[in-house]
Amino acid sequence: MDILNSTISSIKPLDDAAMQAARERHDRLTKPQGSLGVLESLSVRLAGIQGRSLPVIGKKVIIVMAGDHGVVAEGVSTFPQEVTTQMVANFAAGGAGINVLARHSGCEVRVVDMGVAAPVEIDGVLSRKVRSGTANIAAGPAMTREEAVACLEAGIEVAAAEIDAGATLLGTGDIGIGNTTPSSAILTVFSGARTGLTVGRGTGIGAEALAHKREIIKKAIDVNKPDAGDGLDVLAKVGGLEIGGLAGAILGAAAGRVPMVIDGFISTAAAMVAASLCPLCKDFMIASHVSVEPGHKLMLEELGLKPMLFLDMRLGEGTGAALAANLTEAAARVLSEMATFAEAGVAEKNEEMSEEEAGV
Amino acid sequence: MDILNSTISSIKPLDDAAMQAARERHDRLTKPQGSLGVLESLSVRLAGIQGRSLPVIGKKVIIVMAGDHGVVAEGVSTFPQEVTTQMVANFAAGGAGINVLARHSGCEVRVVDMGVAAPVEIDGVLSRKVRSGTANIAAGPAMTREEAVACLEAGIEVAAAEIDAGATLLGTGDIGIGNTTPSSAILTVFSGARTGLTVGRGTGIGAEALAHKREIIKKAIDVNKPDAGDGLDVLAKVGGLEIGGLAGAILGAAAGRVPMVIDGFISTAAAMVAASLCPLCKDFMIASHVSVEPGHKLMLEELGLKPMLFLDMRLGEGTGAALAANLTEAAARVLSEMATFAEAGVAEKNEEMSEEEAGV
Repeated sequence: MDILNSTISSIKPLDDAAMQAARERHDRLTKPQGSLGVLESLSVRLAGIQGRSLPVIGKKVIIVMAGDHGVVAEGVSTFPQEVTTQMVANFAAGGAGINVLARHSGCEVRVVDMGVAAPVEIDGVLSRKVRSGTANIAAGPAMTREEAVACLEAGIEVAAAEIDAGATLLGTGDIGIGNTTPSSAILTVFSGARTGLTVGRGTGIGAEALAHKREIIKKAIDVNKPDAGDGLDVLAKVGGLEIGGLAGAILGAAAGRVPMVIDGFISTAAAMVAASLCPLCKDFMIASHVSVEPGHKLMLEELGLKPMLFLDMRLGEGTGAALAANLTEAAARVLSEMATFAEAGVAEKNEEMSEEEAGV
Repeated sequence: MDILNSTISSIKPLDDAAMQAARERHDRLTKPQGSLGVLESLSVRLAGIQGRSLPVIGKKVIIVMAGDHGVVAEGVSTFPQEVTTQMVANFAAGGAGINVLARHSGCEVRVVDMGVAAPVEIDGVLSRKVRSGTANIAAGPAMTREEAVACLEAGIEVAAAEIDAGATLLGTGDIGIGNTTPSSAILTVFSGARTGLTVGRGTGIGAEALAHKREIIKKAIDVNKPDAGDGLDVLAKVGGLEIGGLAGAILGAAAGRVPMVIDGFISTAAAMVAASLCPLCKDFMIASHVSVEPGHKLMLEELGLKPMLFLDMRLGEGTGAALAANLTEAAARVLSEMATFAEAGVAEKNEEMSEEEAGV
């Protein structure tokens, strides 16, 4: 628990002075005030995270964590479990969706085995395996409380190593056949919402299988009785190994003063766990897109995050995070690179218009 | 009229065979079918535009057109008219929002003077000036029908020159103090909606000025009586010189089989004019973002376009188009660069699941 506790206690609020300086610069840039919307507010937040008025995004890394799920025994997914391992190999070979989008956005991809069921011996895959897949949450806890701590601490260490190696932006990604089931369970526990709102079709199950998946999630919550006030309990009882690793990486990014771009449904479940352990870390999260998975919108609302991209995606892997990493870098560049009214010799608003008239 | 008519008649439908081949390839790529959402449908459309199953996006150019508006005499904007010229100089010097975002997205910026009121003699600005600003639409037509044709034909030629020089993607951008007023007028005419829905605060006017702007737009429509069935009449009576140029560029892109990324409110008004002249050109349009300007959503609905970015932007200049150009290129790369199930040795869906069960 030492690493976890010291990391949480080292997470500090955003730097107000840097944010104020960034806001003041925005108001001098050659555009109507506020007209770049989210790019402006995001760049101000980056200033607060980095503690400097002109934030710079350089090296960007998407951390993709892999884990298997005992609950697949209940028939909650359309894909067989071995696909987790096969997709890890696909990531290492550069052929998956995340590889293409990360290359396109100038991000590196770091693949971490947090708990794939089969042995993974693939070059380029970092092994932080806590156990070989979770237990079936419909019958008991996914993992022990000690294993949940181990996942979080592995994630913290992975993020810290990337930051030490120069990463200025991190993103989350996941792979794990069956992992929309624990993610929906996590959302159900934290939000108290009905499974009709929190559970969706994952990789593409039909109506009958969806009803079954909802029953399995209700059963997992009935059997385990996770405590919504204790993120560690929720993670251990109805979570996943890659979800725990990602929650740890989110805490590690906040402790290292680096923005963390949150991908889709599974990543945002991890973000809920991290926010439960340390609410301050929400200030370091950047929402990327809204997934087709219906509970994702509710997750983002619970966290107070506003997504930038509406692309009807539901792949995970960090694909949304890679695209949003590019937008985040754009936000930083606008603040640094645009000319001011004075530099460009551009007139500001008409003086005859009163402040009240001009203000919005 | 020769260039305009021959361009319109040269615009042909999307290539069905190329789109079908692209769809079939998507279903063999290592992801659940359809899980990349809009990136998939967009890449299929790119195949249809380029007429090949693996579309390639190389050189990207944002065409930013500038024009002034006689209606500023009615006090519809917070900025003085000379800002149009000053911003054109800012574009040429590389200091504006569009310059930063275009650099970030790997786009070139082409600045065209379609009708700035003052003389523009700035290196790097292409002169296609049709007249020095429009007339005041609250008192009469913005321009003659011949001038409207000249704007469209200039835009067609600008797009054709970029395509000849190797552009594989074009985007639209605008500058022109006062140009949300003609854009709202165009939307009001084509949609038949009330000015309460079609007119917003532009660069940031207050409540009283907004009410005045709505009255001015009603007056412009009353005085000019534009024919909603005749795009050329709408453009001439309540349009703008940069709006006409952009409408022409949109037609030119479609004729040249190049996708055209549509920026915000003013660009989408131009898209409505282009679609009125040639409905087929809508298939070549890619919507970028939803502007804060309230009528923008209605414009996109009228055109059947779905935006990708929700960033609360309202700057224009092509800033949304530059960001969406990057997403469009990402869509093409996913289709070309992802591994298939067979190549990656990844299992497909469980066979025991029936088609109906697995299908969504």
